[in-house]
Amino acid sequence: MASQTNPDVTIIGLGLMGRALAGALLKAGHQVTVWNRTAAKAEELLAQGALLADSANSAVTASPVTITCVADYPSLQQAFAPVSDELDGRLLVNLTSGDSAQARDMARWTEQRGAHYLDGAIMAVPPTIGTADAVILLSGSKTAFDSQRSVLDALGTATHLGADHGLSALYDVAGLSMMWGVLNAWLQGVALLATAGIDASTYTPFAVQMAQGTAGWLEGYADQVDSGTYPPDDATLATHAGGMAHLVEESERLGVNAELPRLFKSLVDRAITAGQAGKSYPALVEQFNQESRTS
Amino acid sequence: MASQTNPDVTIIGLGLMGRALAGALLKAGHQVTVWNRTAAKAEELLAQGALLADSANSAVTASPVTITCVADYPSLQQAFAPVSDELDGRLLVNLTSGDSAQARDMARWTEQRGAHYLDGAIMAVPPTIGTADAVILLSGSKTAFDSQRSVLDALGTATHLGADHGLSALYDVAGLSMMWGVLNAWLQGVALLATAGIDASTYTPFAVQMAQGTAGWLEGYADQVDSGTYPPDDATLATHAGGMAHLVEESERLGVNAELPRLFKSLVDRAITAGQAGKSYPALVEQFNQESRTS
Repeated sequence: MASQTNPDVTIIGLGLMGRALAGALLKAGHQVTVWNRTAAKAEELLAQGALLADSANSAVTASPVTITCVADYPSLQQAFAPVSDELDGRLLVNLTSGDSAQARDMARWTEQRGAHYLDGAIMAVPPTIGTADAVILLSGSKTAFDSQRSVLDALGTATHLGADHGLSALYDVAGLSMMWGVLNAWLQGVALLATAGIDASTYTPFAVQMAQGTAGWLEGYADQVDSGTYPPDDATLATHAGGMAHLVEESERLGVNAELPRLFKSLVDRAITAGQAGKSYPALVEQFNQESRTS
Repeated sequence: MASQTNPDVTIIGLGLMGRALAGALLKAGHQVTVWNRTAAKAEELLAQGALLADSANSAVTASPVTITCVADYPSLQQAFAPVSDELDGRLLVNLTSGDSAQARDMARWTEQRGAHYLDGAIMAVPPTIGTADAVILLSGSKTAFDSQRSVLDALGTATHLGADHGLSALYDVAGLSMMWGVLNAWLQGVALLATAGIDASTYTPFAVQMAQGTAGWLEGYADQVDSGTYPPDDATLATHAGGMAHLVEESERLGVNAELPRLFKSLVDRAITAGQAGKSYPALVEQFNQESRTS
């Protein structure tokens, strides 16, 4: 696959995100060909200089690089079923949301047809596309990633995770899990403080400080997970269980939802039952590495 | 209550934390009197110049300020039952772990006896006591807090939360909830990436970035909670529910514990059922403000 400084790019899928991707590439000076099941969504882009293909097939053949961002993998497979013979030597960058198995399957399918394949996840909302704030996670061949750096960099902060095509989907859901973890823990605190008449804006700087402080411990805790040794230099799981009991009781007593506190405590209680009471918090990873035995 | 530059201080309760508090005050030049049910725990402090009281009663009368840090409120009440008459005009700073109702009850009991009362929570491990890293949350009279600033500052970063004596217990459990929220969400990601052979140290910088990025949104989201308006400028709860379904399915498919993802999704699904699908994430606070209807 030859590298080009300013290659033509095809975009398949013109939802909010697909249109933002096409717009960013037009702005960066690429010739952009677009295709969408519903052609009307292309109007604004055509006014900005994009070309409209009359089929997915002619869209793919118009450019050495095709970026796909459709609703789901079945839609993707439907669009690509007739394209099979045209893929040889081209690069497909698939930004459709899906799981790691779907990404790996799609990689096999495209590579069997002689195409290069990068699977990606967009950790951003459409308005930030084309700025450094839009983090785009990509997995697959590093050579393919490097060869089309100019295209990928036009979309945002493009990050290569590794050769395994499943990685972008995994980092995506793992990162979202962190996002929801922070948001829900914050709402738990907001609800607890609301019972004492403290508004969210008054409480929140403290929550931010706790989130950032805890984030600062993670790299050290990661070393514990990787080495499988959990020295309780800060606090043992038994100590955490005691604090969690306070959180559960306080929430229940105040009529605040206690499901999240009860789940926290249930996970730690199981680790203690498994003999981990004297270990540090990341020993709990063993509870996450397996299906729950109780649900 | 008169303010003194370097007042004598009494410490009741000489567990790991109590000994750290006494040590920090000795280091800051205070005359420290200690009492503990088991006197042997005082030995090291006596070698550093502390005085040992022969009863809780004589401990309290030795200083204008008494700091308590015992196992729980029943232990505290047991220690203070005979002290009742000696409290008038003194300051009690109670750092015993408990809930907001226990703190408010203790405040009433001490104030009925003419004492000033601050309730506190220590957001730190014993080795950091006496340094700026040890955050000590205090609630109760601001006048009492200001009058003994030199004592409180010798223990760590003393922060006054408000006059309601229940606030330190509430901020404590709310802050711990954030800590566990970050830690558990991180472990969810660690477990997901482990299935692709990615070690925790490789994954973790991305998790840290997500935690810090999300923490950066909280002050804006707090304004939404306080105003009760949830404009979906970034993403709707319906969009979040779709992402959560991916997280649940990926976790289940890979044999990773999916309890946390399922709880996240269950909370959002209930908000959607309640008509909030088109609102931004913090609208979920309504699910946290009430006992769960399903568990």
